[in-house]
Amino acid sequence: MTDFTKTRQAFHLPEGLTYLDGNSLGPMPVAAKERVSRMMAEEWSEMLITGWNRAGWYVQPRSVGDRIARLIGAGPGEVVMGDTLSIKVFQAVSAARALRPERRVILSDSGNFPSDLYVAEGLARAVDAELRVVAPEEVADAIDEDLAVLMITEVDYRTGRRHDMKALTARAHEAGALTVWDLAHSAGAVDVDLIGADADFAVGCTYKYLNGGPGAPAFIWTHPRHADAAEPILQGWMGHAAPFAFDLGYTPAPGIERMRVGTPPVIAMTALDAALDAWDGVELADLRARSVELTEAFIAGVEADCPGVTLNSPRDPAMRGSQVSFRHPQGYAVMQALIAEGVIGDFRAPDVLRFGFAPLYNDLQDVQRAVDTLARILREESWDQPHFHEKADVT
Amino acid sequence: MTDFTKTRQAFHLPEGLTYLDGNSLGPMPVAAKERVSRMMAEEWSEMLITGWNRAGWYVQPRSVGDRIARLIGAGPGEVVMGDTLSIKVFQAVSAARALRPERRVILSDSGNFPSDLYVAEGLARAVDAELRVVAPEEVADAIDEDLAVLMITEVDYRTGRRHDMKALTARAHEAGALTVWDLAHSAGAVDVDLIGADADFAVGCTYKYLNGGPGAPAFIWTHPRHADAAEPILQGWMGHAAPFAFDLGYTPAPGIERMRVGTPPVIAMTALDAALDAWDGVELADLRARSVELTEAFIAGVEADCPGVTLNSPRDPAMRGSQVSFRHPQGYAVMQALIAEGVIGDFRAPDVLRFGFAPLYNDLQDVQRAVDTLARILREESWDQPHFHEKADVT
Repeated sequence: MTDFTKTRQAFHLPEGLTYLDGNSLGPMPVAAKERVSRMMAEEWSEMLITGWNRAGWYVQPRSVGDRIARLIGAGPGEVVMGDTLSIKVFQAVSAARALRPERRVILSDSGNFPSDLYVAEGLARAVDAELRVVAPEEVADAIDEDLAVLMITEVDYRTGRRHDMKALTARAHEAGALTVWDLAHSAGAVDVDLIGADADFAVGCTYKYLNGGPGAPAFIWTHPRHADAAEPILQGWMGHAAPFAFDLGYTPAPGIERMRVGTPPVIAMTALDAALDAWDGVELADLRARSVELTEAFIAGVEADCPGVTLNSPRDPAMRGSQVSFRHPQGYAVMQALIAEGVIGDFRAPDVLRFGFAPLYNDLQDVQRAVDTLARILREESWDQPHFHEKADVT
Repeated sequence: MTDFTKTRQAFHLPEGLTYLDGNSLGPMPVAAKERVSRMMAEEWSEMLITGWNRAGWYVQPRSVGDRIARLIGAGPGEVVMGDTLSIKVFQAVSAARALRPERRVILSDSGNFPSDLYVAEGLARAVDAELRVVAPEEVADAIDEDLAVLMITEVDYRTGRRHDMKALTARAHEAGALTVWDLAHSAGAVDVDLIGADADFAVGCTYKYLNGGPGAPAFIWTHPRHADAAEPILQGWMGHAAPFAFDLGYTPAPGIERMRVGTPPVIAMTALDAALDAWDGVELADLRARSVELTEAFIAGVEADCPGVTLNSPRDPAMRGSQVSFRHPQGYAVMQALIAEGVIGDFRAPDVLRFGFAPLYNDLQDVQRAVDTLARILREESWDQPHFHEKADVT
């Protein structure tokens, strides 16, 4: 049984705050600060260039990848770290499309994080493919024999709606297409099972529920059946079969290593590696149960006590990730008032109040405080009048 | 007049080492460790998501870029940071090629760092272009009316040979082509003048002479005449004209901002920003004069005192960057012996001893010690016998 009291202690949580924005940026694990200081003082400083071997910097993208693999239902040696999520989306969609060269269509949905759509659109223009975007509920029906790649973010960044990875993957495979799953709002939040779902490619970021720090390295996974066939469009030095032979021509490394690109960001990777210590001993089934407990309690509390808000997330927890959003006509101002009271969620236009529940450090006291504070704000002020809207904080 | 005694004090240089491998990984600036600790303790920890605005994380790729612009002969607002050099090469070559859509050829040379060739080869295959690679001395003659993009690394990573940026750019422009300059071994090492050379695009890394740490973020520069026309192939969120409008379609930001891709690596960027403090007050003319002084002294010393080595770099400093290499039949073993004596250079197959001279922290005492140590090693041991070759350290 996972001890969530213990996992909470791994984090620095500022005094007086209830932090429900870990779906945007996770808080700092105490170990991350210590480990980065040590890496700088003992490795970069003293080992200099030999740190690549002596301190294990070179293999870190793979060793850290192995730690993440366990959290997404993948096996050791199947995940590598590096770059940003946008770059990893580009690599995965390109590689999937290259495995279906006779097909042109990349399908996604309008609930996807827009950045994934931008990346796919840019790729499609470059390689003569076509990006089609449909509503989330129309994805299954839009899968046809023209489809090369289905590119879906499992959990919607605004509503928390969770796609059925296994069913959509099966549907795509029936039509002869491959799948790319973006796990930005899934990894560390829900019980992802890539092998169980028979997915083809997956990517994700690590600065949300995995708490790797702002701009932490992304990950990419390829199903073992594709790992030696996937053709990298970004032919990077570190993805070469023999990087230090300095051949003039590119030969991809076997397996997932070919999805490495340039020199890995060692300082950032060290922070992430330390952050992952918090996951030691955490079982995904417990994580999921805890997440459902927190989100169900929040929905029930808000619906009982808070006037004027409408649930913007699926009511059925099976259809939901680890975040909940509500709509309110004065959503921006309400969120600003909440933040002023020390309850940190965030706002998404036009009227969405978004709350992330991270099982590793959020608890039922956080839920209760958020409900009570929101209830008081909504009852005390008059929300029929327009409130001044400032520009939202960048997240 | 730049005070190089003062700049040397900005670095942590391990006791007893003469470090001549800053062309591979620069040593740690003392300020970098302090600044990263503070960023973690005061920004990530306490500001959490609001750090994007309050701590300036969001604008860092541009503000750090401005500090680098000065060191490469570019103007403020012309450089942004992010990703790795491989990604930036991919972006720059793709954008340059898209400005010459009717032409297919990307030209480079065999003295280029192989990774640039891998990236260009992968891009060429994806977008139906053709990569041509000629010997370094044949580049000028290989420029013809088929050429879309000339992609050249200014300073050769093995020999230190420096291409004439201004002359080659002029030649490329006469033929109607555009240039992409890789400044990996130039930025912080020589007096780069992008605007003076009328270059089109430039990219570089920051973990060598700019001392940003292992895997530090890369930079990209676009000449202002192309900045609003260059079409990004990597359509990232942060390069969008309005990232927080969450539009489903991509509109590139004006100017160089469109070359941003995903969420910037804040911890790494903070280390780099602090590392750049060492450059405050450094004049490029002084940097270049100091570099020539050090490399000339090293060549003269080695040629006077060290038997059995052959200069592998151009003798004319005008044709050379800030590194010097020599060949020796037992090069690998000789370098291992040097390293064992505390003189850190590196080895490149098949027989190259490579020494980088970083004007900010190397001085004439380093030169003298390197010469003396090499001379002693070469005189004391018998180098006619084959020496055991181990696998070289990863750099």
